[in-house]
Amino acid sequence: MDALPETRSRTQRIADTKRRLTEDIDAWIASAQPVTGEAYLVPLCFWWDGETILISTMVDSITGRNLRDNPKAEFSLDGTRDVILIRSTVETLTVDQLRPGEADKFAEYTHFDPRNEPTDHHYFRLNPYRIQAWREVNELKGRTIFRDGSWLD
Amino acid sequence: MDALPETRSRTQRIADTKRRLTEDIDAWIASAQPVTGEAYLVPLCFWWDGETILISTMVDSITGRNLRDNPKAEFSLDGTRDVILIRSTVETLTVDQLRPGEADKFAEYTHFDPRNEPTDHHYFRLNPYRIQAWREVNELKGRTIFRDGSWLD
Repeated sequence: MDALPETRSRTQRIADTKRRLTEDIDAWIASAQPVTGEAYLVPLCFWWDGETILISTMVDSITGRNLRDNPKAEFSLDGTRDVILIRSTVETLTVDQLRPGEADKFAEYTHFDPRNEPTDHHYFRLNPYRIQAWREVNELKGRTIFRDGSWLD
Repeated sequence: MDALPETRSRTQRIADTKRRLTEDIDAWIASAQPVTGEAYLVPLCFWWDGETILISTMVDSITGRNLRDNPKAEFSLDGTRDVILIRSTVETLTVDQLRPGEADKFAEYTHFDPRNEPTDHHYFRLNPYRIQAWREVNELKGRTIFRDGSWLD
């Protein structure tokens, strides 16, 4: 087996995580159906405003219904050997409930504009309450880098 | 935006999916806690025997408990622009309940041997009942390539 990469400091992990949140466009969203308890997983594009994550999907899709009815999500950037895993509460929003300019920023960043889609879409604001970052087993210790609304010191 | 890649036939998607299942080592596993309905997402290594997917994690981990108590999983290979999404039922197994030679094959393929871990691990056999494969929006139509135990014609 290859040697493990060097274990990053928390400061480095936080810097790497913020960079990827401002460079990546797609992520995995896991949600669950509140009655049947069935997990669901899809890739969706996102926009990070520095504090919260905005995604959008069809009102009537499984993810759209799960997030509305059971407003908790697991969000992960791509890359099973550079894991950035974000646990969030979720607000379901119509386009009119977004902040000024936000729908434009989302469309510009993701190249996907739900306002132009033929089917009804909701936006979902993910409010992170725990972020973990690790690459290999040597980084499992210390993987939590954000908790209860704050980056750890 | 870049032009979309050519839309693959179902035959091609099935071939690509089988190839990735025999080459990839890591995947995303989404599970849900049956009472709170909380989704959980982790990367884990896997071994594909041609029909089922074997994974392993700690008996007392969140994923380990979720899969045992709520035996349904969403499994996805890495790559948000080359999606292979597998919905499965799940059997929880001890090492003694594996088929002859299976624990060795798992360890050899994944370079991870739960038998050598200091904490108790379960194996989980994922029995796929739906597999979807798509790269970009032009492949959303026809993305289901396996249903009810069979690859589609």
